[in-house]
Amino acid sequence: MGILPFVAELGLIDHHCHGVLRTDSTREEFESLLLEADAVSPLGGSFFDSAIGFAVRRWCAPLLDLPRHASAEAYLERRNSLHITEVSRTFLMASGIHTFLVDGGFQPERLLSGGELASLAGADSHEIVRLEHLAEELSAAASAAEFVHELRSRLRSPSVVGAKSVAAYRTGLVISGERPSEAEALRSMSSGPVKDPVMISWLVWEAMDAGLPLQFHVGYGDSDIDLHRCDPSLLTPFLRATAGLGVPVLLLHNYPFHRQAGYLAQVFPHVFCDLGLATHGLGHQASRVFAEALEIVPYGKFLFSSDAFGLPELYYLGALLFRQALSDFLADGLRRDAFLEEDAHRIARLMASENAARVYKL
Amino acid sequence: MGILPFVAELGLIDHHCHGVLRTDSTREEFESLLLEADAVSPLGGSFFDSAIGFAVRRWCAPLLDLPRHASAEAYLERRNSLHITEVSRTFLMASGIHTFLVDGGFQPERLLSGGELASLAGADSHEIVRLEHLAEELSAAASAAEFVHELRSRLRSPSVVGAKSVAAYRTGLVISGERPSEAEALRSMSSGPVKDPVMISWLVWEAMDAGLPLQFHVGYGDSDIDLHRCDPSLLTPFLRATAGLGVPVLLLHNYPFHRQAGYLAQVFPHVFCDLGLATHGLGHQASRVFAEALEIVPYGKFLFSSDAFGLPELYYLGALLFRQALSDFLADGLRRDAFLEEDAHRIARLMASENAARVYKL
Amino acid sequence: MGILPFVAELGLIDHHCHGVLRTDSTREEFESLLLEADAVSPLGGSFFDSAIGFAVRRWCAPLLDLPRHASAEAYLERRNSLHITEVSRTFLMASGIHTFLVDGGFQPERLLSGGELASLAGADSHEIVRLEHLAEELSAAASAAEFVHELRSRLRSPSVVGAKSVAAYRTGLVISGERPSEAEALRSMSSGPVKDPVMISWLVWEAMDAGLPLQFHVGYGDSDIDLHRCDPSLLTPFLRATAGLGVPVLLLHNYPFHRQAGYLAQVFPHVFCDLGLATHGLGHQASRVFAEALEIVPYGKFLFSSDAFGLPELYYLGALLFRQALSDFLADGLRRDAFLEEDAHRIARLMASENAARVYKL
Repeated sequence: MGILPFVAELGLIDHHCHGVLRTDSTREEFESLLLEADAVSPLGGSFFDSAIGFAVRRWCAPLLDLPRHASAEAYLERRNSLHITEVSRTFLMASGIHTFLVDGGFQPERLLSGGELASLAGADSHEIVRLEHLAEELSAAASAAEFVHELRSRLRSPSVVGAKSVAAYRTGLVISGERPSEAEALRSMSSGPVKDPVMISWLVWEAMDAGLPLQFHVGYGDSDIDLHRCDPSLLTPFLRATAGLGVPVLLLHNYPFHRQAGYLAQVFPHVFCDLGLATHGLGHQASRVFAEALEIVPYGKFLFSSDAFGLPELYYLGALLFRQALSDFLADGLRRDAFLEEDAHRIARLMASENAARVYKL
Repeated sequence: MGILPFVAELGLIDHHCHGVLRTDSTREEFESLLLEADAVSPLGGSFFDSAIGFAVRRWCAPLLDLPRHASAEAYLERRNSLHITEVSRTFLMASGIHTFLVDGGFQPERLLSGGELASLAGADSHEIVRLEHLAEELSAAASAAEFVHELRSRLRSPSVVGAKSVAAYRTGLVISGERPSEAEALRSMSSGPVKDPVMISWLVWEAMDAGLPLQFHVGYGDSDIDLHRCDPSLLTPFLRATAGLGVPVLLLHNYPFHRQAGYLAQVFPHVFCDLGLATHGLGHQASRVFAEALEIVPYGKFLFSSDAFGLPELYYLGALLFRQALSDFLADGLRRDAFLEEDAHRIARLMASENAARVYKL
Repeated sequence: MGILPFVAELGLIDHHCHGVLRTDSTREEFESLLLEADAVSPLGGSFFDSAIGFAVRRWCAPLLDLPRHASAEAYLERRNSLHITEVSRTFLMASGIHTFLVDGGFQPERLLSGGELASLAGADSHEIVRLEHLAEELSAAASAAEFVHELRSRLRSPSVVGAKSVAAYRTGLVISGERPSEAEALRSMSSGPVKDPVMISWLVWEAMDAGLPLQFHVGYGDSDIDLHRCDPSLLTPFLRATAGLGVPVLLLHNYPFHRQAGYLAQVFPHVFCDLGLATHGLGHQASRVFAEALEIVPYGKFLFSSDAFGLPELYYLGALLFRQALSDFLADGLRRDAFLEEDAHRIARLMASENAARVYKL
């Protein structure tokens, strides 16, 4: 169950992540950032008793010079005895990620920016615009005409390589194939969180006009989500309507709809997918789900992302468990004589970075 | 593929089961109770040709002093040559279940009561009130005011440790987050089966008022179910509305939505889940699905139940296949060095009984 | 990972397939027929980099006297150097399929007929009437009364052994349990593709009147499908309404809803399922999904089909990967001591041909 050497050495493009926290974490904050729960529940016990919790103790402890499987208490004590910048640098460097595409639009005040993150990791970073966050920023500050002008301008900023929609959190993924007019969208404007389906639809079409690869949060997320409304196949009318534009659409995370996502990435020329957030959340079980995600998706259509947020451990675990799962997938294929070693190398490079470089034109 | 010794020896709390039949079974009845079908179909052949059918021949035959894999005919002949009480005692004792939480509200006339069951097994039992059944009983006998009074009183009976809703069978799991008023609920009263969503919603809120851990049948069941209406994520608005009450909600069975259930148990502080009915139905394939069910659920949130009904074999197979699957999960984790042996022991104890004892305050 | 000898030698009934192309294929056509995409996308790379693409190079190349894992270029060059009839005969003969049930109603002008296919393979063939195609043919040519008369006559043609509906592609699988009247159906008639739910519902009831086993496309298909509308559990009201008629209903493909299909085949006496199209699409990962499909379905309810269309390789890979997956399933069961060798032989025969022979009265 070691990692194949050529997989261990791959440089990664993380095509979807956030920043790391600027400060140390209490145990409560640390545990709640491991998972998608708002807080630890006395009814249910510590989140260290979970796949990701055990993965931290197993894989992260040694990077802080602790024995494998150090206790949660020992781990947090040691972590807090170090400067958070040192902790972050350690895990970021160990991830082997050389390029970060950063969605900086969620809780930016708590987190390092993309540039700071990249600098700490000795890596490159590019910006993913979070569409709903951008609209919320601009709606507070501008007239309708200025809103549209500024939004279009921001989508065309040279540092921006993609856009992201959190429609899943706001309205679910029922996005129509009909493009709303600017007038319709502006009528739906209001202050506060963008929750209007017309506005969200207009934003994603604006991103496509700008030629920006468009990411959708899909499936697994925090308790704001109604999971059955986040099935990616709900996007089918939108995908059908945009198939001819040549602008990539990227389905993020997808668990437990990763098979549906693979289907969409197979049948639509512009659709891609990943396992994102689920990879580190699955801990030692990541390999089985990863193999499921690859059942019917062409290998030129699957990408790596960590969806790490806040804790630097999550970049490291995201990358490590991606490598482990990819290695297990390829080793299994080689053992079954499903493809040649040179094919395995090519598949690995595609998923680690080449698909992302092609999609985002990096 | 043996069972780890510390798993084999665990005492179990079965947090959801029914009673055993009072009488012998014909082959027809036996086969139909193995699965969720109403009857064996001449089009499709014997239900002994199924995962559970083979599990009976493999695991139950030796307890009746037959060789492993005895034929269906030999098995039933031997079984019927013994007194049903003896057969029931044999399988119940062999299950290693020391506490049964019994839903006695389905076909009670055919079955031993919880007390009789426990007595036969040398175990303890507690009552789970089946809400729709209780309402049906009381609606026949009482005025509206008496109905409410008696219902509240029964929910507070000292022998009752939890409530169960079969909304899945009656309306599907679209239960709103808005609590209906007593007047609205009473307006929806009628004789016969409770199928009104307002009444069902009112009943589950009443159970929560009584502080009773609330079980929902989810997913896999008999042909009365429309499976797509039994996705547990349909409960999200209700779960969001009740997250702050501190009353546990338990999602039963869940197959094939066990990943959705694990998600809900992760993000909501009061939500728990099991694999229930599916465990024995899966036979020798139970371990893979069990591992799936544990992908993202915190280990303090997963329980054992057999959902056995009628046939004593189902308690035994439910417990045995749970042990096998738990053992396989832990052995796999240990082989991958995912956690320490002492962690494996703790996880096992949590799922076998400690989570249930905490949730139901046993 | 070899195939158990008694599985390798099984004769197969392919209960759902199409014809093979009459002509050679360009690389573009070949790649697009491997998967369900309309065309290869420059954004996503070659479809040879997929599970099915690697399966062609691994398993099909040797039958054309090339080394295993020959490159895509070498494979297509060699293939085009041979006569297409020779290529088709080679793969059809190697499949071990002795009886084909052929849906000839999709792009018949490009394909060999069922009779030609069977002749090439030294096998038998029978006709599956594609209901929507039949209605489209007849609606162009007839008055309403003639339409009904001719349709009923064609459904009773001696060569026809079953009917198939592509409701999944036209309306999704929400088919009501209420039978529409002939008058209602005829009011919904129009020229062009049959997309009216009343007409589709009437057609499937007509097929049942004729006593024809009724196939439904379910789940995974091309981009015309909205996948969430192809969940087979949406058919529940229709299945409940038809459970007493004694006419088999067959759920095809089902991926990623194969567990839902297994549930329906368990609880309804007349429902059967397969993994169809998904088997070859999954390539070296077919065995895991096949095992999932068999979790709760009685073994008398699961059939083999290739759903091959156009490329003769797909019959061969469909049959080969079915054998591999069935062998892996049985070998795993034998290793776990889940059933006896004689049981394994019986299960294999049921799924390979006996279930199909019983259902279609062959």
